[in-house]
Amino acid sequence: MGGKKSKKDKDNKRADKRAFDPAKPVEVAERLRLPAGPVHLSDLETGVLDFGPQSKTDAAEAMLHIGPRLAELQERLYAQATQGSRESLLLILQGMDTAGKDGVTNHVVGPVDPGGLELASFKSPTAEELAHDFLWRIRKRVPSAGRIGVFNRSHYEDVLIVRVHELVPKEVWSKRYALINSFERELVRQDVTVVKCFVHVSKDVQRERLLARLDDPTKYWKYNPADVDERGRWDTYQDAYAEALRRCNTVGAPWYVIPADKKWYRNWLVASLLEEKLAEIDPRFPPADYDIEAERRRLGES
Amino acid sequence: MGGKKSKKDKDNKRADKRAFDPAKPVEVAERLRLPAGPVHLSDLETGVLDFGPQSKTDAAEAMLHIGPRLAELQERLYAQATQGSRESLLLILQGMDTAGKDGVTNHVVGPVDPGGLELASFKSPTAEELAHDFLWRIRKRVPSAGRIGVFNRSHYEDVLIVRVHELVPKEVWSKRYALINSFERELVRQDVTVVKCFVHVSKDVQRERLLARLDDPTKYWKYNPADVDERGRWDTYQDAYAEALRRCNTVGAPWYVIPADKKWYRNWLVASLLEEKLAEIDPRFPPADYDIEAERRRLGES
Repeated sequence: MGGKKSKKDKDNKRADKRAFDPAKPVEVAERLRLPAGPVHLSDLETGVLDFGPQSKTDAAEAMLHIGPRLAELQERLYAQATQGSRESLLLILQGMDTAGKDGVTNHVVGPVDPGGLELASFKSPTAEELAHDFLWRIRKRVPSAGRIGVFNRSHYEDVLIVRVHELVPKEVWSKRYALINSFERELVRQDVTVVKCFVHVSKDVQRERLLARLDDPTKYWKYNPADVDERGRWDTYQDAYAEALRRCNTVGAPWYVIPADKKWYRNWLVASLLEEKLAEIDPRFPPADYDIEAERRRLGES
Repeated sequence: MGGKKSKKDKDNKRADKRAFDPAKPVEVAERLRLPAGPVHLSDLETGVLDFGPQSKTDAAEAMLHIGPRLAELQERLYAQATQGSRESLLLILQGMDTAGKDGVTNHVVGPVDPGGLELASFKSPTAEELAHDFLWRIRKRVPSAGRIGVFNRSHYEDVLIVRVHELVPKEVWSKRYALINSFERELVRQDVTVVKCFVHVSKDVQRERLLARLDDPTKYWKYNPADVDERGRWDTYQDAYAEALRRCNTVGAPWYVIPADKKWYRNWLVASLLEEKLAEIDPRFPPADYDIEAERRRLGES
């Protein structure tokens, strides 16, 4: 009986895999959403989950379908903003070095019209930025109505690297979780859909990716010896991430955990999540706010 | 004999078309460059020229080859900037409504990593912008080192729409040609490759494109009755363009005229021009500025 059950399980599993249709959208948000409560990063999967494409080939095929759908959703979002809609979407990408924040930016939002994108990459703050509160530079880059904004790093650095390196005293950074929640609530109330992705890579895969950069002269420039120093603080970063994820996992702007050991799976997940969130906004091409027949006549005479 | 010659001509023409290889880059800059001297827009071709793809299919195939080459050139440009290169490229797009400034942005720079792009779309200036000189808002959007900047409209509007609508007195706008040349010279001397494209559409094709927007509910939002008013000023605009093209056609930052009646040909031309200009910069992946072996050891122990 045990053997029989096991065979049936295998059959089911095979059926599940066959069931993945690269041409169809998959709802991933509920499955990726970080549950409320204490967070232990080491318990969160970094590999391929049991849904969606299970091979690079299937993922590549699915991405070819998702691209045009994302592009159309973005166009609708942009179009409706020309007639007063304030809806926009902000994708926030956080993760350890090599997790793939740049890769997601390139491969996930790549198919979207660049005219509808607003990207912001937050590096070390300038002297002027440091002279203001930590959200000052962030607020300036909130996407305009109708746009998809992407934050490659974000205000979360102010409770991550800043905490790990003790760049400000604990009494300063410890207040920021509440300030972040308040800021994000403000965005959500003003029609910004906030999609926060923690791109989660394992320590071993990070080593592989850093080593790969040393093996390829076209990747030398991506390697920074300081990244190995940061890697030495892995556990401290994981603790800081765990607290940021737990404390800023709000109903309006929850965290999504993206397993990132396989680039093709990571990209497919974020693309699917983005599609799902855009589809929830349900943007529509607006009606004509002029007299179509009258315009046809004017043009005919012009 | 006449018939024979004609047949030979046809054979040659067929051979020429066969000679177009969608997989290979084509140098277009010299052929598109506006000659020095007086400019009559009505003498400039808006249709398909006698080189490059002669069909939509060939153009589409060529674009599939150009995309990855552009993406790699952009990556090299970005990479070398991480080690001190100041090189960047600024693509300036000007043209009448419907000529395809947005289309070029989407289809030509679309294949490039959005992280390496900086787009600026210049609309009616704000009160704050109007309180400054006309180049103030433009200078702020000059691309960073290693980036490809795209200006969808630009400082040229200040000698185009501003002149046509007499938004400032003639003694103000007439000084701007020299100011523009001086500004662009400054850019070029600081390693910004300036590529100025006049996207040139015929008056008939403009009508067709405006009418098409009225036939398609997903395009209603792109139609603005004010565009027909502007169309009524076609000749005045053409004169303003002719003067801007002639007076700002400098050696360091010449104008390129892009026939735009066929979208597929227009996109292929701008993509080819962009590739040629990036290839002239000849960006290189920089060498490692750290000890590769030492880093391998550090990573092995981490």
